[in-house]
Amino acid sequence: MRKVAVVGYGSSNFTKDEIPVETLLLESTKQIFDTTRNISQDLIDGVIVSTNDNSKYLAAILSELAGIKPKIAHSVEHLCSSGSNAAISAYSYIASGLADVVLVAGADKINNTGQVLEWDKTRGEFTHPIFWGSMFTKTHKRKFNTTDEELAIVSAKNHKHALDNPNAYSHKIHTISEIMNSKNITDDLRLLDCSYPCSGSSSILLASEDVATKFSDEPVWISGVGQKTNSASFVKNELSVLSSSVTASKYAYDMAKTCPAEIDVAEIHDAFTVCELMAIKDLGLSENENASDYVRDMFNTGNRKINPRGGLIGAGHPLGATGISQIMEIVMQLQNKAEKRQVCGVKKGLIHNMSAAATSSTVLILES
Amino acid sequence: MRKVAVVGYGSSNFTKDEIPVETLLLESTKQIFDTTRNISQDLIDGVIVSTNDNSKYLAAILSELAGIKPKIAHSVEHLCSSGSNAAISAYSYIASGLADVVLVAGADKINNTGQVLEWDKTRGEFTHPIFWGSMFTKTHKRKFNTTDEELAIVSAKNHKHALDNPNAYSHKIHTISEIMNSKNITDDLRLLDCSYPCSGSSSILLASEDVATKFSDEPVWISGVGQKTNSASFVKNELSVLSSSVTASKYAYDMAKTCPAEIDVAEIHDAFTVCELMAIKDLGLSENENASDYVRDMFNTGNRKINPRGGLIGAGHPLGATGISQIMEIVMQLQNKAEKRQVCGVKKGLIHNMSAAATSSTVLILES
Repeated sequence: MRKVAVVGYGSSNFTKDEIPVETLLLESTKQIFDTTRNISQDLIDGVIVSTNDNSKYLAAILSELAGIKPKIAHSVEHLCSSGSNAAISAYSYIASGLADVVLVAGADKINNTGQVLEWDKTRGEFTHPIFWGSMFTKTHKRKFNTTDEELAIVSAKNHKHALDNPNAYSHKIHTISEIMNSKNITDDLRLLDCSYPCSGSSSILLASEDVATKFSDEPVWISGVGQKTNSASFVKNELSVLSSSVTASKYAYDMAKTCPAEIDVAEIHDAFTVCELMAIKDLGLSENENASDYVRDMFNTGNRKINPRGGLIGAGHPLGATGISQIMEIVMQLQNKAEKRQVCGVKKGLIHNMSAAATSSTVLILES
Repeated sequence: MRKVAVVGYGSSNFTKDEIPVETLLLESTKQIFDTTRNISQDLIDGVIVSTNDNSKYLAAILSELAGIKPKIAHSVEHLCSSGSNAAISAYSYIASGLADVVLVAGADKINNTGQVLEWDKTRGEFTHPIFWGSMFTKTHKRKFNTTDEELAIVSAKNHKHALDNPNAYSHKIHTISEIMNSKNITDDLRLLDCSYPCSGSSSILLASEDVATKFSDEPVWISGVGQKTNSASFVKNELSVLSSSVTASKYAYDMAKTCPAEIDVAEIHDAFTVCELMAIKDLGLSENENASDYVRDMFNTGNRKINPRGGLIGAGHPLGATGISQIMEIVMQLQNKAEKRQVCGVKKGLIHNMSAAATSSTVLILES
């Protein structure tokens, strides 16, 4: 299998503005052309678009707008983890030898009607993800005596991190008490426990080992790939563990021949505050049973190891873009280009992206 | 690159009934479990759904319905060629070594709102594909003096072939004069020049060379893969040549180290009658300039080399399923299992699947 590297990236701002998905896709893609050495349209073999938008043929549309005439072009959708799935699809085109250079562009716009899973009727009236976020939170509280303050610290930390992310949706400090006193959405979730739906786009450029250094002095290698889909229905899921994330991370660690202790920085899918606590444990990043002491310590010491760009809670969650923006952040960290967000001495980074109450998960490991 | 084979297949009937896309996907997939030796859910590493339906998370939904817990799962969309794009994505997962066995299931339901490309405003009021079908037809008539009778023969032939396809939408003979006298849709297109939008699903199972013979005594190998997306806008396209098909077929022939003369049977994307004439020429299958004598000869002699299952005109065109049903037909031909549709002595077969006025095309070459 040929090695595959990330050699370029770009992102729009994540915003509450209603922006057409085609415009968003072009914005983050243009940045790749503006910032990647030696890139030109004719060198791009594939264009994969990651989105939950109902618009069709977006890979052809983006290609036309960007002046690319690719061999491979199509959209990929898998709800909130569409972005990482599209990146792995691009990885496989390159690893297999079908392509040398593939552009992956993810975008969604706020109020996109495609963001709610309509099929799963087991949830009755509760079609919004807040339903499972609330169930996860109640379970976590019962099992680990997790407090509202411990949940709020996740949000406070990620909002603080997002201050230094120029593309983030939120650029405002929220104190722990402010978060704890924000509007109750359910018994267990307040407004500031939730990630922000928003408009946004992120793009990355992947290249084979044969050509990667043409485009970048610091290619970042995808060394571990893990994916797992357990079900589509929430009721078939466990409430106290992100079991698809456990499986996906095991695959990724094994493929990268590494272990959680070697991960220096991680992008975690914090759709709700409880998800960050669960993922830190389920990915093996902390031995602390409910991870809350670990997060509190990071918050108090200013350690940015988890969600340095602010996570989905601080940076926002434009579904199709999220996994790609997570990859972009880890690439910047590995290239020591994350400026105020930079974690010191990063050699390995992890991306955790999941869908629909963790009925499916993706984990990627990147190395410089 | 590891070799990849088709080792199983299944199809629903193609019908005008409104059937939920999840039901359709499960029906063709169940046939694979019913007919493929040694297959079991735990052996399937990936589930890729090809569709233009607006429903999300369909790969997870199909997986749950079929009892599969795959690593890889997502939907692929690229309008009318979604099916072949999904198959090539599955091919790359296997060729790269990320997966050994991948299920590809494509479906669309009649009256799916996602079937019209809304973005391309260059067409003004003409949002329906009939617009470009009509422009292609007018151009063909001007350039090659193609007659209405020559176009009608394509439809008569494909309707005749569909009689022997148990899954086909149409099971009715249409005479040449009946086709020529069917309702005028535009100046240049009559109702029976058009493929039938319909509900339908087709699934195929792909496996690596390491495991293919576990599932089939007659694995059919994907030896050539060609793809090209030139644009999304019809006005950027040429009218007298399917130029993306020309490019895609060149890639596929080169990869398979073959040439048009070696192709024994072909599935051609006859969205409209003129498309079959154009594709036969542009894929190099006939040296006849407008291919009409070639088609007339096939019709008169009962030669089934082109579109043995009836094409999109006879079998119907459920967008996400079409490319996969084309692959299934060529696999059956190569396995000598196509019964009344069987072409004699088939060693190599070709699939031609395209989108949106041939702004993009896929060509695959299969061998026994």
